[in-house]
Amino acid sequence: MLHNLNLPQPALDAASAPAACRRLIRSGAWSAPTAGLAARHVQVNLVMLPAAEAADFERYCQRNPKPCPVLSISEPGEFAPPALGQDLDLRTDVPRYRVFEGGRMKAEVEDISALWRDDLVTFAIGCSFTFEHSLIESGIPVRHIEQGRNVPMFRTSIQTSPAGRFAGPMVVTMRPLKAADAIRAIQITSRFPGVHGAPVHIGDPALIGINDLAHPEFGDAVSVADDELPVFWACGATPQLAVLQALPSFCITHAPGHMLITDLRNSDYAVL
Amino acid sequence: MLHNLNLPQPALDAASAPAACRRLIRSGAWSAPTAGLAARHVQVNLVMLPAAEAADFERYCQRNPKPCPVLSISEPGEFAPPALGQDLDLRTDVPRYRVFEGGRMKAEVEDISALWRDDLVTFAIGCSFTFEHSLIESGIPVRHIEQGRNVPMFRTSIQTSPAGRFAGPMVVTMRPLKAADAIRAIQITSRFPGVHGAPVHIGDPALIGINDLAHPEFGDAVSVADDELPVFWACGATPQLAVLQALPSFCITHAPGHMLITDLRNSDYAVL
Repeated sequence: MLHNLNLPQPALDAASAPAACRRLIRSGAWSAPTAGLAARHVQVNLVMLPAAEAADFERYCQRNPKPCPVLSISEPGEFAPPALGQDLDLRTDVPRYRVFEGGRMKAEVEDISALWRDDLVTFAIGCSFTFEHSLIESGIPVRHIEQGRNVPMFRTSIQTSPAGRFAGPMVVTMRPLKAADAIRAIQITSRFPGVHGAPVHIGDPALIGINDLAHPEFGDAVSVADDELPVFWACGATPQLAVLQALPSFCITHAPGHMLITDLRNSDYAVL
Repeated sequence: MLHNLNLPQPALDAASAPAACRRLIRSGAWSAPTAGLAARHVQVNLVMLPAAEAADFERYCQRNPKPCPVLSISEPGEFAPPALGQDLDLRTDVPRYRVFEGGRMKAEVEDISALWRDDLVTFAIGCSFTFEHSLIESGIPVRHIEQGRNVPMFRTSIQTSPAGRFAGPMVVTMRPLKAADAIRAIQITSRFPGVHGAPVHIGDPALIGINDLAHPEFGDAVSVADDELPVFWACGATPQLAVLQALPSFCITHAPGHMLITDLRNSDYAVL
């Protein structure tokens, strides 16, 4: 790897070690999205809730494993869970956090040390980056990555199973694929049941309540060619929506695209 | 099971032992299609060719494993290959055979003992009955079975890899499925790479040269509902077409739907 010491952006890329990424993020020198960094390692969605409200959310995730694949749950107040990595701090190692009070976003910050509470339970939830790495390694083109965009996300008419105050529609990501690639992508992502797994839908978007692929609810639109099928996977934005609807007294999440990079390997989540 | 002794048709069904099926077929008392008989056991397509023409066909199958999954190849002249079952005779145990000379069908018969040759090599080729059993056990509806029809088969614009004089288009079967069932069916049939495996296409039939799903080339048409996707699997009719096009001096096959019932178990062909 070549370094140009005059570059303003510090050098992190697909080959970087997870701990090196976290240290640079912690220093404040990297506040950008984490897509493509430490590519062989698992990046996770974070949801931090007071212990009193965490039990309902845990049940919610258990009942909806495809959109809410929980990879780890911290002890209350624990900010350096060894299960996620060495030299890891949940309060500083995410480039950008969102802070919610009573269900409303109050701030977007790069460090939550000053906001930390001893009763916060952190849910680390799997992310499609893990299976996208496998798709790309298998030669399957991933449109939004090719186009340098965020994955398009859509609210669906599929309802999740509620738990306590947590409920809401399933959010899905969409990747357009030719039929043969779609079949291969179903096989590949089926190997990763712990990080969204196989698609939840393929073909006609209207059947799951999506009216217009050109206008995603979150992320960026990508085009679908005539010889392609839209393929839909359950998305980690689902639990974020459930959290917003539940109006918890306090909650911190990562900002979209600004994930926690763990020491876990993507390949460890392939069941076959 | 209740037997009505006055029924003209002898009693064979899904629970029958393969050897019992073969004995009844051999006796001449069963000349009907074999769909649904001995349901846990592998039924195979048969192609019998003179040894001089078998080597090319063997290479053809090797190059096209999805439509031509070879489960066994006999020695020249061998009519009781133990690999397929005990008390099994290739000359009598198929309800109906087709006899070809110079690429033309000369006869359809129930017994080929009088036509047997010491140089005939028998290819036993996997059949979709094996994975359909798994689909049904998983609660996935298979339309043509529900409707008591033969599976619809279509000639496609996908060309097989030729070997010697053997060549031709891939033939596919079509099963209409709702998206979630289609995804599950891809997972299930991926476990059976030795009997056609995962689909070769899903969605728009025109992309593989099929103009009208209502008019299959072989078998019976089934309807596709608005909320269903047509899903296409490589079909064992492909090698039969290649054999016809190659104009071998002599050839015997089973008649469509009238398969050889082996002692092999469907579950033995699940790789996972």
